[in-house]
Amino acid sequence: MPPFDSPISQVLNDYKAAVLAKDVDAFVALYDPDVRVFDMWGEWAYTGLEAWRAMAAGWFGSLGTERVVVDFSDVQATVTKELAVAHAFVRYAAITSDDVELRALNNRLTITLVRRDGTWKIVHEHSSSPIDAETMKALLNR
Amino acid sequence: MPPFDSPISQVLNDYKAAVLAKDVDAFVALYDPDVRVFDMWGEWAYTGLEAWRAMAAGWFGSLGTERVVVDFSDVQATVTKELAVAHAFVRYAAITSDDVELRALNNRLTITLVRRDGTWKIVHEHSSSPIDAETMKALLNR
Repeated sequence: MPPFDSPISQVLNDYKAAVLAKDVDAFVALYDPDVRVFDMWGEWAYTGLEAWRAMAAGWFGSLGTERVVVDFSDVQATVTKELAVAHAFVRYAAITSDDVELRALNNRLTITLVRRDGTWKIVHEHSSSPIDAETMKALLNR
Repeated sequence: MPPFDSPISQVLNDYKAAVLAKDVDAFVALYDPDVRVFDMWGEWAYTGLEAWRAMAAGWFGSLGTERVVVDFSDVQATVTKELAVAHAFVRYAAITSDDVELRALNNRLTITLVRRDGTWKIVHEHSSSPIDAETMKALLNR
């Protein structure tokens, strides 16, 4: 549904590109200074861009020669003049420098974007996997 | 910031009341027919109101004489004319019929609401706890 979906397509494509390139600046540029992220791993919340930048630097820095290919599926988006929301399933695949897939996991992702001065920025992100109530462990594959 | 925050306050209060009363109809009335929920427990997604109603009926039916007190904290909301988003921390406490607290756990919650014909409905909900990367287990207390 362009043009309504266009900020969502744009940000998801830019996210994929930034992660594949392990480009911290390009990644952080997608987010608002006052972002609050409910990330899947370890922390209840990252508040503000510096905390989120440190997460990205740590993540990309930990990858060595591996790269991460991100794919989004079942994207549902609602876009209005000043506010946009999208939710989707995400697949993160680690690949070697020869493009061999080593492993992959799935997430669920919700993002909220606000348009300020003509530019859309992510003001909130929530990623997770469902929890198995018996083991209390995360389910990582759909 | 009323009136902008009012649909969020309203839906959070109605959610608390419906859960405390174990009232499936009141709970389901908060949601849009085409809701997609990324719930914390067991399922990757609930799609549509009937699936979500079955979850609520199962949850409330499992409680026996216990009730659940819901508290929201650190609520951040963005409300525009047709679309609203909120994210918050949630505490679910199980209490006895004598109001003695038995146990509690924390979640993170994101909700998206759309206004149709003057009524706000939840079209998307995402709840989770962060995962400990060592054990792959959910962290349940902030």
